[in-house]
Amino acid sequence: MNIPQSDFPRVVIIGGGFAGINFARKIANKKVQVVLIDKRNYHTFQPLLYQVSSAGLEPDSIAYPLRKILKNHKNTFFRLAEVESIDSEKSELKTSIGNIGYDYLVIATGTKTNYFGNKSIEEYGMPMKKVPQALNIRSLILQNFEQAAITDDKEVRKALLNFVIVGGGPTGVELAGAIAELKNHILPRDYRDLIPEDMQIYLLEGAARVLPTMSEHASKKATKFLSKLGVLVHCNTFVKNYDGRKVQTNLSLELQSETLIWAAGVTGNPVNGLQADVLVDRANRYKVNEYNQVEGYNNIFALGDISLMQTDGYPKGHPQVAQPAIQQGELLGKNLMKLIGGKPMKKFKYKDKGSMATVGRNKAVVDLKHFRFAGFFAWFVWMFVHLMALVGFRNRVIVFFNWGYNYINFDKAARLIIRPFKKLNQ
Amino acid sequence: MNIPQSDFPRVVIIGGGFAGINFARKIANKKVQVVLIDKRNYHTFQPLLYQVSSAGLEPDSIAYPLRKILKNHKNTFFRLAEVESIDSEKSELKTSIGNIGYDYLVIATGTKTNYFGNKSIEEYGMPMKKVPQALNIRSLILQNFEQAAITDDKEVRKALLNFVIVGGGPTGVELAGAIAELKNHILPRDYRDLIPEDMQIYLLEGAARVLPTMSEHASKKATKFLSKLGVLVHCNTFVKNYDGRKVQTNLSLELQSETLIWAAGVTGNPVNGLQADVLVDRANRYKVNEYNQVEGYNNIFALGDISLMQTDGYPKGHPQVAQPAIQQGELLGKNLMKLIGGKPMKKFKYKDKGSMATVGRNKAVVDLKHFRFAGFFAWFVWMFVHLMALVGFRNRVIVFFNWGYNYINFDKAARLIIRPFKKLNQ
Repeated sequence: MNIPQSDFPRVVIIGGGFAGINFARKIANKKVQVVLIDKRNYHTFQPLLYQVSSAGLEPDSIAYPLRKILKNHKNTFFRLAEVESIDSEKSELKTSIGNIGYDYLVIATGTKTNYFGNKSIEEYGMPMKKVPQALNIRSLILQNFEQAAITDDKEVRKALLNFVIVGGGPTGVELAGAIAELKNHILPRDYRDLIPEDMQIYLLEGAARVLPTMSEHASKKATKFLSKLGVLVHCNTFVKNYDGRKVQTNLSLELQSETLIWAAGVTGNPVNGLQADVLVDRANRYKVNEYNQVEGYNNIFALGDISLMQTDGYPKGHPQVAQPAIQQGELLGKNLMKLIGGKPMKKFKYKDKGSMATVGRNKAVVDLKHFRFAGFFAWFVWMFVHLMALVGFRNRVIVFFNWGYNYINFDKAARLIIRPFKKLNQ
Repeated sequence: MNIPQSDFPRVVIIGGGFAGINFARKIANKKVQVVLIDKRNYHTFQPLLYQVSSAGLEPDSIAYPLRKILKNHKNTFFRLAEVESIDSEKSELKTSIGNIGYDYLVIATGTKTNYFGNKSIEEYGMPMKKVPQALNIRSLILQNFEQAAITDDKEVRKALLNFVIVGGGPTGVELAGAIAELKNHILPRDYRDLIPEDMQIYLLEGAARVLPTMSEHASKKATKFLSKLGVLVHCNTFVKNYDGRKVQTNLSLELQSETLIWAAGVTGNPVNGLQADVLVDRANRYKVNEYNQVEGYNNIFALGDISLMQTDGYPKGHPQVAQPAIQQGELLGKNLMKLIGGKPMKKFKYKDKGSMATVGRNKAVVDLKHFRFAGFFAWFVWMFVHLMALVGFRNRVIVFFNWGYNYINFDKAARLIIRPFKKLNQ
């Protein structure tokens, strides 16, 4: 690993997501040695991944080099590595590039796609949790368009132009809206050899309404916005099987589709090695106390999506979104320095800033604590909040410009097939 | 192929480079049916590829979807396909997605990397002619940095941080300068666990001076600029062998390097099927007359790099750069309509707008016909010319912003390893 010894205690962070980077920033200039480990060399702004999939943004503008987050701080190190296991007896990690000891360990590994054991979806479905996956979806959509343009077979064309999105949470809703905009604005101009009506976007949701974690008002509005865009929404619908062409559901609904995008669930992404009983079964999250300490350990913490803090108002833990991760990361930055200094730590209290989702141009839904609204103003708020949450001035400006350009021109211009995607069954 | 029959003559264009798109634009709204065929769905602005390799720009901002070039024009079609051969008797092309007849054929396939028969370089060297190749180089550079940070072995670290660029033309010179900026500005801040002095950039050129196609004044200045940046320039130097680690040259010079970037030569990229004698041997270019008609054919044209037009002042043909391709494409757009209308065509006359190369911030060399200059003003001109030559308003704005940002911050921020590159020998 080649990390020098230091007089300060060593804090090792696994994962450069929202939790990891907000924690790292807080302690980077303190009297600790910081080692941030991630499998990738960049932070991904997951809320906008769907815009990479739908050709609205390039990946570089929603990602940020992790080394830039630590730059200018002595005693901070980034290592590109995969963590294999934790040895809490020895206070040591085993990684793909060697072992490393820690004084304090912060696990911020987030979640991974959950297929709920359905092998057929795992094999043929397209997940969208990472930048390369988002680029694969972009390539597949564009490749399907090109293939549809040259085929004489109506059935084949239909399957190429049917896009099935599974999961009606914010990700699925936003992606469905964005793909519908490709149909409504890009196909008529740039693919005049296709008939836009041949293209269909299906959004399948297992619950009784889309955006099930938001208010009923938001669900209703989102459903209305989606159908205005031409998205076919099916609630109470599960996918039972997908062979790369035919989507079979729990209902009589069967769809022919070359593209099934899986946005229906995540599960924790824990690291091997801690006592099994600190993980909560189905969610795969580490049980933590109100200081984010993993149950039974003094010097091991879990932050964000991978942590399960059961408190008043949140008996099932906090929602697995950016805000709890950011807030926990920032608080632990302060608390850890208190712990090291022998002072009492402060309990975490989640400030719910609300939730939101956008459904194409001029349309979004926002739920605040005492107030909910939808439409143009919600869309404006959605954009502002996401722009401000992006990491780095450069990214903000480039995303802002792209949005303005796309809005004025009804365009989505990041349309390069740079990772030609081969489906397994082809 | 699924191209409908039309009352207008069909013009098939192979290749969406500078020549192909400038020709296509000229005839898109005329009384012809236009079919543009390319292996990729985007136009690549090759002069700035080196900035993608060196993390200064994202690929989307120097590429442009080919369908956007034809949009809004009826009777125009884009097809993503590889052309396998030409049957000039039948006036038909064989492609990866079926056959297509043509009334007029325009070959604008450009060049491909020339390894001059050296298999070891073809296997282990990194070419930089295409967007995916540029991204591979970016990934390899960044992966080498990460690996260098964790190794204790001095020799290994040296090989990881030695970058050998072969070919001292504009591409090699510009890339060497950009990689030197990574060393000078990014390493000290973002890779504080590396010692910048451990990194070396070598530029090897077979001729007696770098930029051999430009003036001696330009060569001298460029050499001076390069050494100021710390690039080690070796002229009269050929690579004889490269095994993925050791670079052997014609001189006593031997280098340990994990990265050899090959920018030393191109050769024409012809299509199978025309009479063998229309190709000029070493260059692999089609001999054309002053109307860009391929020798011996009335309805087949070749444009840009793949064409060899021997005229007064250019006995070996025009330089294989953007300007002749653009000018020939535009002229043929007019000439073809004249030919169809039975009017006499106009002979091509190359307007030499000069040549230029940049060598890092504030430094460039420019050769005009009667005037040559170097330094800050040349750098300014270089930027303006490249910005204006980019295809699309969006690309111009994003590149301009990135340049401004990089300039002010001494930064290069497009540093994602999104295509982890595995070298063959690892």
